[in-house]
Order: sequence, then C-alpha cells, then structure tokens
Amino acid sequence: MPNDRTPDSSRRSERSRQAILEATRALISEVGYRKVSIEAIAARAGVGKQTIYRWWPSKGAVIFDSFLALSESAGGEGITLPDTGDIEADLRLVMRATVAEFADPAFEKPIRALNAEIVNDPDLAAQYREKLARPVDDAKKARLRSAQQAGQLAADADLDLVLEVLYAPLFQRWLHRTGPLTPEYADSLVDIALRAFRP
Amino acid sequence: MPNDRTPDSSRRSERSRQAILEATRALISEVGYRKVSIEAIAARAGVGKQTIYRWWPSKGAVIFDSFLALSESAGGEGITLPDTGDIEADLRLVMRATVAEFADPAFEKPIRALNAEIVNDPDLAAQYREKLARPVDDAKKARLRSAQQAGQLAADADLDLVLEVLYAPLFQRWLHRTGPLTPEYADSLVDIALRAFRP
Repeated sequence: MPNDRTPDSSRRSERSRQAILEATRALISEVGYRKVSIEAIAARAGVGKQTIYRWWPSKGAVIFDSFLALSESAGGEGITLPDTGDIEADLRLVMRATVAEFADPAFEKPIRALNAEIVNDPDLAAQYREKLARPVDDAKKARLRSAQQAGQLAADADLDLVLEVLYAPLFQRWLHRTGPLTPEYADSLVDIALRAFRP
Repeated sequence: MPNDRTPDSSRRSERSRQAILEATRALISEVGYRKVSIEAIAARAGVGKQTIYRWWPSKGAVIFDSFLALSESAGGEGITLPDTGDIEADLRLVMRATVAEFADPAFEKPIRALNAEIVNDPDLAAQYREKLARPVDDAKKARLRSAQQAGQLAADADLDLVLEVLYAPLFQRWLHRTGPLTPEYADSLVDIALRAFRP
C-alpha cells in the first residue's frame, strides 16, 4: 500500500479530488442532477469508483462538495466585496456580476440542479446555508455595515432583510423564469434597496 | 354506455374529478411528489385508474390541476384584493395571510413539491406562470394600480417589480428555510415596498 502522506501521493490525491469535482459539475450541466451517476463521474474523471467512495459517502455529497469547491476557488471564506466608499457603485458592480452569472447557462445549470434538491431536503438546505450561502452573505453584510457607518444606509437596517431585498427578486425571477436578467434589472434592485433602507 | 351528458352522470363525473384532485393533494402532502402514483391516487379517490387516464394524460397533469383547483376554489380568475383605500393596511392583511399560509405545513408541502418540479421543468414553469401565478398577480396589480391613482405609490412604479419586492423575499426565505415566517416579517416587507416605491 502506498503511504498517503508522502508529498507525491498527496499531490496525486488532490489532483484526483479536483478532477472528480470538475467532472461532477460538468456532468450536472450536461445531463442534469438526477441522471448523474457515480459511474459516469468516475469515467469522466479517469478514476475508479472506489476512489470516489473513499472520500464521499454518496452522490449528493460529491455534488455538494463540487459546489463548495467552486465557491472556495472564487475566494471561499476569505471573500470580500469591493469597497470604494460608494455603496451604490459597489452594489451595482456586484449585482450586475451576479445577474450575469444567473443568465449564463454554464453557471446556472448546476445551481438549478442543486436548488431542485434543496427544496425537498431540509438537511441539504441547512448545509447549503452554512457552507455556501453564509460565508458569502457575511462578506456582503460586512460591506453593508461599512455603508451604515458612512451614513449611506439606515443605521438600524436589518442587514439580512437588505440582502433579501437585493437578491430574492433575482433568485425568484431566475428560478421561475418570470422575466429578463439584464444589467438594468440589477440596477433596479440596487435602487430599490437603497431607497428602502436609506438613512 | 351511459350518456355522459345526462345531469346525473355529469354530477357523478364532477364528484369523481373532485375526489381525484383532493386525493392527489393529500398524497403529495403525505408522501411527497415523487412517490405519488396514479395507482395510489385512484385507490384513495375510490375510482379506477382508467377514470384518471380518461381525464389526464400523466401524473404531472393531475398534480398540476389539483393545484389549479385549489386556486379556483379560493377565487380563481375572479380573485380580488381588499381595497379599503389604505394600501398599507390592505397589503399588511394580504401579506400576513400569505406568510401564514407558507408557515402552515398542510399548505406548504404540496407547493414545495410543485416548486421542486418547476425548477427543472421549463414547460411546467410556464404553465405555473400562466395558469396559477398570473391571475393572482393581475389581481394584486389591480390593487396596486388603484394605490397609484390615489397617490400612495409612485405613478411610474413598475408593478411587476413591486410584486417581486413584496413576495420574493418571502418565497426565498420559505424555500431555503433561512428565517422565521411571522406577522412581523410580513409587515417588514410591506414597509420596505412602500418606502421603495413611494411617490
């Protein structure tokens, strides 16, 4: 048996782990969550099924980690939002980027698949909240807090509510496909939130 | 063969139809969308499977109609919102009732099941928009339009956006189970929408 703790085998393990997570995301985009199988992930990643089962107990667990890895590579818990001192300009930038992501089929397909699972699975919903949503929300709230200190947002504004007003309309419009996802839409959401929570 | 157009057989048909739709909603609440079968619906409704297939081509179609019937019995296309002349009071009443519905397990379970399907099914999403959401949204927009005429909402407010700001935060909080669904929360959403869209 090789010793898993030697530098070479660690590197090899990490490479396999990344290949598995990438294959998982690619397959979800191509065939949808329900049709993804451990067999297909293993074939696509060029590893054996037993390699996957060594690290993850189930298909759901691999899929969840494939999203978590995406968020980590985008900054993970160290994520920060732009702070030019102008909350309106900074929020427009962030919201336009977010709207563009949800309008991008390559990005939105796996997120849609994850949402379909979350709706009926309270445990997965809790994991999603804690591991994926909360670190990002905390970063957003840090930026909103600095706007409160600068007198650009009401000092008593409930920051969870501010985030809901910014993001929930976009989320619902995307999930139910009820309207266009455009830069103008992103700007409208920023205007609404700033009007609703101005000092 | 009995003549389906005699009054007696029409009444019998309508009774069977209602029994099937009620059985469908009950089973979705109890076992979840995916485990509901045409066999189980037929057994619960006390009809034969062929009676179901005479009226509906698929499980999805019965389930969709079971929701549509719910909305019709609640007022359907003839739905109107209270109009006391005070948009704040009227919206509080409506939003508190909506929040209470989403906090009620008996109500929210079938809606959750429907949402899980809608996420990955653009055709069902379109049916949902046209047949279920639009008539209700039109009624809400009629009430908002009367508030615009009374000078209580900005004359140029985009009413689809007003509805998104009122309902999307509640929808996301409910779907992702991210916070409590209370009367105070309903009131906050009304306050936010009225501040964001005041004249």
